[in-house]
Amino acid sequence: MADKIRVTVWGENAHEKVTPETQELYPDGMHTYIAGFLSPNADFEVRTANLDEPEHGLTQDVLDNTDVLTWWGHIAHGQVADEVVQRVYDRVIGGMGLICLHSAHFSKIFTKLMGTSCVLKWREVAERETLWVTRPGHEILQGIEDFFIIPHTEMYGEHFDIPEPDETILISSFEGGEVFRSGCTWRRGAGKVFYFRPGHETYPVFYNEDVQKVITNAVRWACPVSTYTPICPNREMGWYLK
Amino acid sequence: MADKIRVTVWGENAHEKVTPETQELYPDGMHTYIAGFLSPNADFEVRTANLDEPEHGLTQDVLDNTDVLTWWGHIAHGQVADEVVQRVYDRVIGGMGLICLHSAHFSKIFTKLMGTSCVLKWREVAERETLWVTRPGHEILQGIEDFFIIPHTEMYGEHFDIPEPDETILISSFEGGEVFRSGCTWRRGAGKVFYFRPGHETYPVFYNEDVQKVITNAVRWACPVSTYTPICPNREMGWYLK
Amino acid sequence: MADKIRVTVWGENAHEKVTPETQELYPDGMHTYIAGFLSPNADFEVRTANLDEPEHGLTQDVLDNTDVLTWWGHIAHGQVADEVVQRVYDRVIGGMGLICLHSAHFSKIFTKLMGTSCVLKWREVAERETLWVTRPGHEILQGIEDFFIIPHTEMYGEHFDIPEPDETILISSFEGGEVFRSGCTWRRGAGKVFYFRPGHETYPVFYNEDVQKVITNAVRWACPVSTYTPICPNREMGWYLK
Amino acid sequence: MADKIRVTVWGENAHEKVTPETQELYPDGMHTYIAGFLSPNADFEVRTANLDEPEHGLTQDVLDNTDVLTWWGHIAHGQVADEVVQRVYDRVIGGMGLICLHSAHFSKIFTKLMGTSCVLKWREVAERETLWVTRPGHEILQGIEDFFIIPHTEMYGEHFDIPEPDETILISSFEGGEVFRSGCTWRRGAGKVFYFRPGHETYPVFYNEDVQKVITNAVRWACPVSTYTPICPNREMGWYLK
Repeated sequence: MADKIRVTVWGENAHEKVTPETQELYPDGMHTYIAGFLSPNADFEVRTANLDEPEHGLTQDVLDNTDVLTWWGHIAHGQVADEVVQRVYDRVIGGMGLICLHSAHFSKIFTKLMGTSCVLKWREVAERETLWVTRPGHEILQGIEDFFIIPHTEMYGEHFDIPEPDETILISSFEGGEVFRSGCTWRRGAGKVFYFRPGHETYPVFYNEDVQKVITNAVRWACPVSTYTPICPNREMGWYLK
Repeated sequence: MADKIRVTVWGENAHEKVTPETQELYPDGMHTYIAGFLSPNADFEVRTANLDEPEHGLTQDVLDNTDVLTWWGHIAHGQVADEVVQRVYDRVIGGMGLICLHSAHFSKIFTKLMGTSCVLKWREVAERETLWVTRPGHEILQGIEDFFIIPHTEMYGEHFDIPEPDETILISSFEGGEVFRSGCTWRRGAGKVFYFRPGHETYPVFYNEDVQKVITNAVRWACPVSTYTPICPNREMGWYLK
Repeated sequence: MADKIRVTVWGENAHEKVTPETQELYPDGMHTYIAGFLSPNADFEVRTANLDEPEHGLTQDVLDNTDVLTWWGHIAHGQVADEVVQRVYDRVIGGMGLICLHSAHFSKIFTKLMGTSCVLKWREVAERETLWVTRPGHEILQGIEDFFIIPHTEMYGEHFDIPEPDETILISSFEGGEVFRSGCTWRRGAGKVFYFRPGHETYPVFYNEDVQKVITNAVRWACPVSTYTPICPNREMGWYLK
Repeated sequence: MADKIRVTVWGENAHEKVTPETQELYPDGMHTYIAGFLSPNADFEVRTANLDEPEHGLTQDVLDNTDVLTWWGHIAHGQVADEVVQRVYDRVIGGMGLICLHSAHFSKIFTKLMGTSCVLKWREVAERETLWVTRPGHEILQGIEDFFIIPHTEMYGEHFDIPEPDETILISSFEGGEVFRSGCTWRRGAGKVFYFRPGHETYPVFYNEDVQKVITNAVRWACPVSTYTPICPNREMGWYLK
């Protein structure tokens, strides 16, 4: 492993072109903003990548030199090339950490790693979300109190069609009465996957300090300690005699 | 296994002596009421037991002839004899199903099986609870739609200090903004354990048809298919040659 | 749900054309043999389907009328049409049970549902496999003692690259010293998935009574109790007032 | 959290008085030997405690200043005072890491945290154990290859009566044909618990470099990032307005 955690912040960079609220909140792009609050961490080495770049900025070389990848997408999931998705998938199995944010629940890479539909309910009326800690002491929740509030945001509601998480660390309630498993972890191969619900494109959710704290912690949590190559070896008898 | 599912409904029978609302709702005791809605199921054979009976009605013989035990307790947890708790515990490990209702989260048997503190937040202002299905298709949720509502009840809120459930099948939201994992399953030894949040003593929660449906389904789900005796055998080499 | 459990036994029917040992053991095909030992169960209604049939025998109508699908494949995984795989996948999410046998660990449907590579180690020297019960009392293990032995079979060894199973119910040791998680369960959407290692094409593994017992139990365990349609509804505020 | 990880190595110090092989292997006690191989880690601050000390060396002050506790016991489980067990338990719920070694499967603290009988099979004929990695990339397995071998040791076999582990990271096979889940993790409250099978008192198992590596990694993995106090607060309505 490298000395620093090499983080690649990926964004689809699409709302940035068509949605005025997004442009106002994130004039340099959501990915740039996320990279911006991660960068001050002395143990991180942060770069961005986005859909418009060749190979969406996720060449084999970039991925080979990424410890943790964060993913934000929404209206352009379908434009992500399958071969790039496969490349990211292979790196997760091989150990790279993956943090899927908000509407990335429907990204090709997340649904491929989950093996489920990842559907959910939704509503967009700027309501209050309260995120409750369901696993105190978890590394991803360092510095987070019992709960935190996002005053105005989109609602996501259960049933969220995911495999039973390895750990459910945050559950949200919404003003309108819905609930949602907002912080969930899974291992896939040697890689750690974290889904984190906050992060809507037209509310200033990524400005929230607790949201930034959780993502920052998740980067450290997801950083691999070793690599893994999935192979199918044919083994001889008596191997233990050698 | 017997032809019918032998259900024992246990109640501490304490609020019934001191709490007017409980007396009014459940004049014959909560355990009698629960047994009453379970009994019409042709595949069930239902009896009750309570704290006041010798050995709290849970003699070795009763437990040996119980497939599924339901447990409700609140103000008298401390009066349950440790030796009875141990006997119930041994039967769960041996295969008996256990359904812990509402304030049974703090019963000696539940905390002993969980290995955690089982603390939670609470408030009693007759607020609305909505129970959301987080595992559609689960046997315990047969006949339950996407969600169901209990109009007036006590609130329980996270953090609920339990081990990561094997399955989280229901999550509640409350009018006041809290959330709670209201339907959780675990296996302990050969036994299946279900925790179900609804069931407060001063609101007519057990009158609710969806609540009755869940408990009825849970009895079928928790019924054992075989028995198990935890032993520590010393095995010889070459056993596979015999 | 129908009165009987509608089981479809799928086989790729490929070794049956090229492998003499398979032809001798299973002259009518492995799928026919599996259907043969399942059929005597009065609560089952069993049919077969295979790769050579139109749409591999898995039309929408067949799948819509299947409660539990068993899957065996090996040398022809790549010949299974992606659109049929998608159809099976959608039915599993919707509630259909799926039992993947032996080399089906590498089938398109299993890897798609797992979200991992599903690699493993292997060796083919007719060695002894012992399957140890790690979850006594599990419904799939009804009638299975502490362990059972398959005298001569292929070895599969860890690391088996699967998500952490919801339940690990059988672990194998092999004469050569390897281990393998041979019985694992997961839920995906409303569907239950069981992976069961035994079932090699050139050893009489499906003749083994314990193997037959496990598969028979698994059919009952995997049978759905309800259906589920994964959708993404936009919900209005105030829904609970209606 | 403190700058260094404060490790307390607890031993029952009983075989050291009566078992010649133990005396020869560990003349200063097993706990001293374990502390000896942990101490060179610059980020650890290691002390020992044992049964013979007042309060078994586990006073409130010692526990309050312990980040990770390792536990070895066997013939003296019954001599550990219940009040000390409760104190350790409270600290685990509150965040302290706990590593239970070998025969500590039957310790009061481990069975109390598990909520199961923790029985297993055993045999003592100095046979070969192979520990296979079932979760490559796990932090506790850093520096461990695909498997490692302990040439001569006692056998532990399934069924090991534990709750389904959060993660099963190592599974052993034994020369005699048994298997065992040798590396398992759980969270209890805010604390992380690791059970690790190796560590018999009459074989030089703790001399094994891979065993030392796993225990060393586990200390770092189990170190808490925050503290937690299990309480049952009564919450007012309208708390989110404040």
